[in-house]
Amino acid sequence: MAARQLDFYFDYLSPYAYFSWRWIQAICKKYGLTLNAHPVVFGKLLDHWGQLGPAEVPPKKAALYKYCYRYAQLNGFDFNPPLNHPYNPLPALRLSLPGIAGDAQHQLISAIFEAGWSRGIDLASEADLANVLESLGLNSSEMLKAIKTADVKAELRQETAQAIARDVFGVPTFIVDGELFWGNDQQEHLDIYLQGNDPLNRPKVEEMLARHRGIDRKTLIQRHYKK
Amino acid sequence: MAARQLDFYFDYLSPYAYFSWRWIQAICKKYGLTLNAHPVVFGKLLDHWGQLGPAEVPPKKAALYKYCYRYAQLNGFDFNPPLNHPYNPLPALRLSLPGIAGDAQHQLISAIFEAGWSRGIDLASEADLANVLESLGLNSSEMLKAIKTADVKAELRQETAQAIARDVFGVPTFIVDGELFWGNDQQEHLDIYLQGNDPLNRPKVEEMLARHRGIDRKTLIQRHYKK
Repeated sequence: MAARQLDFYFDYLSPYAYFSWRWIQAICKKYGLTLNAHPVVFGKLLDHWGQLGPAEVPPKKAALYKYCYRYAQLNGFDFNPPLNHPYNPLPALRLSLPGIAGDAQHQLISAIFEAGWSRGIDLASEADLANVLESLGLNSSEMLKAIKTADVKAELRQETAQAIARDVFGVPTFIVDGELFWGNDQQEHLDIYLQGNDPLNRPKVEEMLARHRGIDRKTLIQRHYKK
Repeated sequence: MAARQLDFYFDYLSPYAYFSWRWIQAICKKYGLTLNAHPVVFGKLLDHWGQLGPAEVPPKKAALYKYCYRYAQLNGFDFNPPLNHPYNPLPALRLSLPGIAGDAQHQLISAIFEAGWSRGIDLASEADLANVLESLGLNSSEMLKAIKTADVKAELRQETAQAIARDVFGVPTFIVDGELFWGNDQQEHLDIYLQGNDPLNRPKVEEMLARHRGIDRKTLIQRHYKK
């Protein structure tokens, strides 16, 4: 029988994706899950769902950076965000595709996240990324050449499209048994779910979600319902 | 000397505002803070910051309802959302203004939140709201008449405008000593802050926030920078 799978969707733009990458590997090990790491383009998720990212609302960016700094301090690791933020995450994401990173994928993801969000390198810089690759004994020039091919670019677009097709609207997202959990704050609930103790009353949730919408903002109606 | 103040910004549309209302009163008591409860129009915050609310992205609404249901179960209270959601929150918000609710304000906020999110009444219905008011011994017909006056409508608009002027972008938001915390998941950090043990390195955060933006989405640029 194939091992139970957990799909993890991430973009290096998100510090929460980094935070959850720090614990999701242990959770998967604890429950014997195969961890499938999917790099996706967060900006494309936002475009699709018509949403802004946290770094796109200035006071939200400030509040969340403070949250991140406190979270890292309280959890015993360094928080030093990538040199410029937002930045172009495409080279880092393409390097992290299974077809490029191969067996080193999880190790590479850990190294890129840690370099970007704990040591503050420029995650858009191919030179900085090359250093990360070399530190793992990977062939940086070959890999950086490979990510410029049309096939690899298509692979990342496909990962993103597949994520959207599975209703992924943000990062980090975890999907196990078709159940979607979004956000670093889902650790407790995901753990309880995997223990087999999920308190969710599914018929009740389905009933709630099928209820009538009493009102909608004009801007929302224009964006979603009049196209 | 005046007591230290904590400003709490909420809209009944948000289950997280309800969840945090359940603990913020105890936090304020613990640290001797005066709790100032500010009803604000969440939709206007979203309009201002160009953002969508959680209930406006269908898979996000589903994931968050599940989160809420699990959270309530694990924290030992009932979760039954308002009959229709989203709904028009204006009557409930206006009833909760200090000028209308007076000394009963906190008690009224607790009662409306509990009726809406634990017992699932229709929070847009004046008849349902009247029942909540009567259960507290308040004069519902007088209060429901008062909220139709121009002065009261202006008071809610003013609360919302003042919140935006203080960089409030979502609910629940807590501001103490000018420090903004957003979201139900801030309980731990807020508590540590109030203990006087905030681990935040402020110069470092300021330096981070002043950094260059390496890239922006076209849609964002259109929305915020080309107006």
